[in-house]
Amino acid sequence: MTEIEKLVQGILAGEKKSIARAITIIENNGQKAQKIISAIYPHTGKAYVIGITGPAGSGKSTLIEKIVKKLRENGKSVGIVAVDPTSPFTGGAFLGDRIRMQNLSLDEGVFIRSMASRNSLGGLAKATKDAIKVLDAAGKDYIIVETVGAGQLEVDIVKVAYTVIVVLAPGFGDEIQAIKAGLMEIGDIFVINKADRENADRAVIDLLSALELNTEKKWKPQVIKTIALTGEGVDELLKAIEEHRKYLEAGELERKRRKRVEAELLEAISQRLADTIIAELKTEKTLEPLIEKIMNRESDPYTIADILLKKKIKLEKEKK
Amino acid sequence: MTEIEKLVQGILAGEKKSIARAITIIENNGQKAQKIISAIYPHTGKAYVIGITGPAGSGKSTLIEKIVKKLRENGKSVGIVAVDPTSPFTGGAFLGDRIRMQNLSLDEGVFIRSMASRNSLGGLAKATKDAIKVLDAAGKDYIIVETVGAGQLEVDIVKVAYTVIVVLAPGFGDEIQAIKAGLMEIGDIFVINKADRENADRAVIDLLSALELNTEKKWKPQVIKTIALTGEGVDELLKAIEEHRKYLEAGELERKRRKRVEAELLEAISQRLADTIIAELKTEKTLEPLIEKIMNRESDPYTIADILLKKKIKLEKEKK
Repeated sequence: MTEIEKLVQGILAGEKKSIARAITIIENNGQKAQKIISAIYPHTGKAYVIGITGPAGSGKSTLIEKIVKKLRENGKSVGIVAVDPTSPFTGGAFLGDRIRMQNLSLDEGVFIRSMASRNSLGGLAKATKDAIKVLDAAGKDYIIVETVGAGQLEVDIVKVAYTVIVVLAPGFGDEIQAIKAGLMEIGDIFVINKADRENADRAVIDLLSALELNTEKKWKPQVIKTIALTGEGVDELLKAIEEHRKYLEAGELERKRRKRVEAELLEAISQRLADTIIAELKTEKTLEPLIEKIMNRESDPYTIADILLKKKIKLEKEKK
Repeated sequence: MTEIEKLVQGILAGEKKSIARAITIIENNGQKAQKIISAIYPHTGKAYVIGITGPAGSGKSTLIEKIVKKLRENGKSVGIVAVDPTSPFTGGAFLGDRIRMQNLSLDEGVFIRSMASRNSLGGLAKATKDAIKVLDAAGKDYIIVETVGAGQLEVDIVKVAYTVIVVLAPGFGDEIQAIKAGLMEIGDIFVINKADRENADRAVIDLLSALELNTEKKWKPQVIKTIALTGEGVDELLKAIEEHRKYLEAGELERKRRKRVEAELLEAISQRLADTIIAELKTEKTLEPLIEKIMNRESDPYTIADILLKKKIKLEKEKK
């Protein structure tokens, strides 16, 4: 049995060590990574992926901890992928948080992985998608992806989820931030956390009116108040998640899945193409003089790319 | 004269309207965009690009305003590209800030553009790079790129700069953030802004010791205290920028430029390839059944991509 076969077997058996190893390989995004994904792919598509985003300090991680505990009580296994640099899962935030997370990670039914942007060669978004596949194949019932709501990348990553939860803390700043970061468009459920703070109700009202603006959505986003620290409102949140899941499973889920598969396929094709051709060009030493030309401003990348490709295709035709 | 030719002429003449129009076209990243870049490319490579990043609220924008004023006093023209969603340039932050920025933008020698992530189809990083080219071709002496130091994308964008300035405000949190976001590695100059706050000196010391860790760098990053609001320390900052520029121009700049040109070329090639092949596949209606196969978990994107490309190349060979 090859190393990869062993690893895949371990993943399918839900072994933490194999899962962790596989995700590391995926972050380095090489031949091996693709072999793994190919091998586990038939076993994916069962997990329900929940995206949780919001400004740093809105209490996402504490909320996740409470959600996970509930899911575990219901006998569900959970995978957590944290892409939020300020998250305790990724080693950020306060010691207290981190200790709570460690307790969580001791549970055999919970797998926590933080994706460090700087480590993922193929790009963070791709590494995250593939990590989700590994956890999916490992039989996790729920996969939670945590990102911080700043920057397009973070927002995009949440889109790999079926249900997107936007977590805000009371205070006008957050809502502004959320709108700027494009969170209003992506949220299926909005959580006003730290609801014991004053003007929490104000925040709810502001949020609802902001949501009014975007009417073309078929699903009417819900707004829920929580106090993550005490767990207040978490049951309501889980109910909302299940409602949204039912709504999706009534039809939209299939469409979402299809669109994602298409995107993945096109991405894979582009990647493969680029890799092969660029490798060829490098061995043929065709690049150096062209780079020179561009450096001297005699031409530009786009024009050169066009010329190269025309040549390439001609070559292909003349071959054999 | 075609529309594009007129536009390019306007850019080269430094006309604000043409510059603005061109950047909008670039954000929509189509054929037109590439024609524009190709046309202006020979006129690029003169501007000096400065990247400014740091946590939200560290005072980047106020600092930029002061830097720009100084550069203008020295008769330099300036382009500003703001990718920071919390920046007053992008419409964030407080009214007072925004008014100051508007005054700045009234200056004929200053062009301010905010890149809204959600608007750039080809990806924010590419749109930003191309916007810099437009401002470069428009004859700006300095181009300042502002991003918020959170998320890999933002950090990467700053790397299009020659001199990267990391702006922090006193307080331990910021440094932690900076380290997490990978800012320590990318900064050529570190600014402790709001230096009138207590423990500013403490922050400087923490920063210096954090910088000690990374020794392989040939350029020793400088740490400068500023009070952006009063303009204190801005002269020192400009001096540091010029020092770093001289250091780069002694050799490294050429290497940086070459590496970037190579990256741009490879990117352009991949893009072109993907576009052509995927367009073909779609017209050939080959995709639908394949997506079906993946949906049914009979295969996976990577395997299908491989098969497709092998077919494709065989086809090319058999053609003619």
